[in-house]
Amino acid sequence: MSQHTKILLEESEIPTHWYNVIADMPNPPSPYLAPDGTQVPADAMMAIFAPDLVEQEFSTQRWIEIPTEIREIYRLWRPSPLFRAQRLETILGTPAKIYYKYEGVSPSGSHKSNSAIAQAYYNKIAGITRLTTETGAGQWGSALSLAGSMFGLTVRVYMVKVSYDQKPFRRSMMQTWGAEVLPSPTTLTESGRTILANDPHSPGSLGIAISEAVEEAASRKDTNYTLGSVLNHVLLHQTVIGLETRKQLEKVGDYPDIIFAPCGGGSNVGGMMFPFLADKAAGKQIRLVAVEPTSCPTLTRGRYAYDYGDSMGLTPLMNMYTLGHDFMPPGIHAGGLRYHGDSALVSQLYHEGILEAQAVAQLATFKAGIQFAKAEGIIPAPESNHAICAAIDEALRCKETGEAKTILFTLSGHGHFDMSAYDKYLNNELDDLIYPEAALQASLSNLPIVSS
Amino acid sequence: MSQHTKILLEESEIPTHWYNVIADMPNPPSPYLAPDGTQVPADAMMAIFAPDLVEQEFSTQRWIEIPTEIREIYRLWRPSPLFRAQRLETILGTPAKIYYKYEGVSPSGSHKSNSAIAQAYYNKIAGITRLTTETGAGQWGSALSLAGSMFGLTVRVYMVKVSYDQKPFRRSMMQTWGAEVLPSPTTLTESGRTILANDPHSPGSLGIAISEAVEEAASRKDTNYTLGSVLNHVLLHQTVIGLETRKQLEKVGDYPDIIFAPCGGGSNVGGMMFPFLADKAAGKQIRLVAVEPTSCPTLTRGRYAYDYGDSMGLTPLMNMYTLGHDFMPPGIHAGGLRYHGDSALVSQLYHEGILEAQAVAQLATFKAGIQFAKAEGIIPAPESNHAICAAIDEALRCKETGEAKTILFTLSGHGHFDMSAYDKYLNNELDDLIYPEAALQASLSNLPIVSS
Repeated sequence: MSQHTKILLEESEIPTHWYNVIADMPNPPSPYLAPDGTQVPADAMMAIFAPDLVEQEFSTQRWIEIPTEIREIYRLWRPSPLFRAQRLETILGTPAKIYYKYEGVSPSGSHKSNSAIAQAYYNKIAGITRLTTETGAGQWGSALSLAGSMFGLTVRVYMVKVSYDQKPFRRSMMQTWGAEVLPSPTTLTESGRTILANDPHSPGSLGIAISEAVEEAASRKDTNYTLGSVLNHVLLHQTVIGLETRKQLEKVGDYPDIIFAPCGGGSNVGGMMFPFLADKAAGKQIRLVAVEPTSCPTLTRGRYAYDYGDSMGLTPLMNMYTLGHDFMPPGIHAGGLRYHGDSALVSQLYHEGILEAQAVAQLATFKAGIQFAKAEGIIPAPESNHAICAAIDEALRCKETGEAKTILFTLSGHGHFDMSAYDKYLNNELDDLIYPEAALQASLSNLPIVSS
Repeated sequence: MSQHTKILLEESEIPTHWYNVIADMPNPPSPYLAPDGTQVPADAMMAIFAPDLVEQEFSTQRWIEIPTEIREIYRLWRPSPLFRAQRLETILGTPAKIYYKYEGVSPSGSHKSNSAIAQAYYNKIAGITRLTTETGAGQWGSALSLAGSMFGLTVRVYMVKVSYDQKPFRRSMMQTWGAEVLPSPTTLTESGRTILANDPHSPGSLGIAISEAVEEAASRKDTNYTLGSVLNHVLLHQTVIGLETRKQLEKVGDYPDIIFAPCGGGSNVGGMMFPFLADKAAGKQIRLVAVEPTSCPTLTRGRYAYDYGDSMGLTPLMNMYTLGHDFMPPGIHAGGLRYHGDSALVSQLYHEGILEAQAVAQLATFKAGIQFAKAEGIIPAPESNHAICAAIDEALRCKETGEAKTILFTLSGHGHFDMSAYDKYLNNELDDLIYPEAALQASLSNLPIVSS
């Protein structure tokens, strides 16, 4: 075995610029709209986001420089390793080569830190001292708590109450980094009080937690709000993943035929795939496949339409694939993929046929994740198992056809805080949790009407 | 900031040989004895250990080649990174340089995998198909489960019942890699049945679990027993830690003035420090400090005497620092350091003044661990916090004296499966858990008498 198992880069090879896909999209991105059809101005976003982040949200510049202060923190775990899954290939008996980019090496355990560090930095230099956010499964809340401790910012995380109770270790992780974690709904915000007045025992939801975090940020000058996916600037920050991967593959003289990434709000898809898009436009044969859960099939079953980003209808309207903002996805364990909508950029590129999508069912993802863990050691996050499942299926197709394809996927995080899900799977207590078709049709028929 | 944050090595720089400290010790190691004072022959160990491991246990050869098959698996996470803790140095305001070798990058999350992979391999080539072991906190059980899945061996882990119930996620981790995990005491062994007959609700202990695992291995030809620390061959395998660290420091032109490692059974101490011992013998100024809990102060308060390795008195007698084999350490959260004895090699080198030791209290270790996490990101295992605490104290002494020392410590694992301990600390529910002096004196007065 003379090849590398891990392909590493030097710290000096951490990208100096993020790649902004907007510069290379065939069509400009759809604007954010108010319900009356007017465009939402950048200024309106300044109330809760740092100016540099709002500028990035609307920038058409191809390369955006990564400040030294952010690259210094990235050095704690970046460049992240690219692995050649030789043991998995042998076990599958496939002629395909399988590579995976491992983002679980960040202290918070997932790719989320790539944007959290950037968002904390830009808020810090804008004179902001406090950040709010929401978290469900806990990956984003953990990443922002870490980022807050790196830049000396106070972080308040509204954690969906049912997760707060069920995932005490994610909560302790955030608290270890100094964050304040509150079970949402709280009595601290109007949104929370309204919910609690109707249901004193509300288990909370991501939509409610977003409303609380946004409301607090909007009401305080020293405080801004942060979001872990969906928005253009978040996907921009994540492009370090794909940029590093390109360099790593070049080092071993390889290039992917097909890339898989798990897809919830789109930050993994954008982060890994956007840096490969220009090649595709230039005629390179490469397939880019977003993998989502069958229980929350935004791209594969949703409608391309203007909809709210949150379930309460507080955000601007975004042109995206959506299951309807009041679609309630079943309680699958890949909590990071339980989102009714998707990044507007990912949605548009999918709509234009540049990205592909496929949906996989929960049980198949855990089966794939365990096969991966036994071969490669790392126990993946349930979200990552979606990409693994699709990659293994592709490798097995290659075995049938004899094609020696190069398959690449993003291993977005480890599963150390998701072992209860593995436990349930191993004890045959999980199923595929299909949503009722009638509920999907109902939420799709309830999309906001945009007057124009 | 032009220096490296992480000092990395290529996979080709994974050590090709383990370093056997016995070749360079001023005196030969004390033999293992039976209670009648006769030397325990190597043959007797063959009943439960693979022949190559027994050979390593008694070898006096300085360098022992690492088989390719083991190095291939090491490549999944080795060489592990050496970090320069620049952010921590800045926060402490110390002129000292602080380096840490991070072993938490292994899939099982600690240094334990270095020996587990080797032990599984040697058993595999000896025709063994099943391995047994015990686990308390779960780091060793996890490492062996991973190793079993890598070499296709069946692994049965006797997990102390109270840990089995309190640490379900460690259990799920082992099961994900395919291991069978049983709450000990079980009814499957004579040892377990004896205990249960006396106390049907026994919470178990490491001593009982060892007895069960040894008994099963002794009774089956296809099955061997494995141990995660204490024995010479285990410490031998861990020397990859120190060997890599030497190379990494050479790359940046540095050399440690003082090294700290957490000390339970001694595998961290041996793994990091043994490769620096020859330098010390050659006159190099370097201090090597084992850090243990004040609640289980084997080196700092124990007696250097022949004692059993387990609480039931089934193992050979080893000449080591011991608190007495029936000493019951308080339930501190650094479970890996709750051992009444210590490696015979570490004990002898400490007795001869070559290694030093210091004890730190539980609360101070968590305070240090959280300070480290906020500065460097990684949340450490409670065991590792002992080394961190001592390193920070040393760095603060340097601040007072103005000495620009080079401090090195082993960050032996991450704390992702120990967040309940952090939670308790953050909620002021932990204390220092000092053992009663009378209990220590009682167990010290109950050491076995070796006739000679």
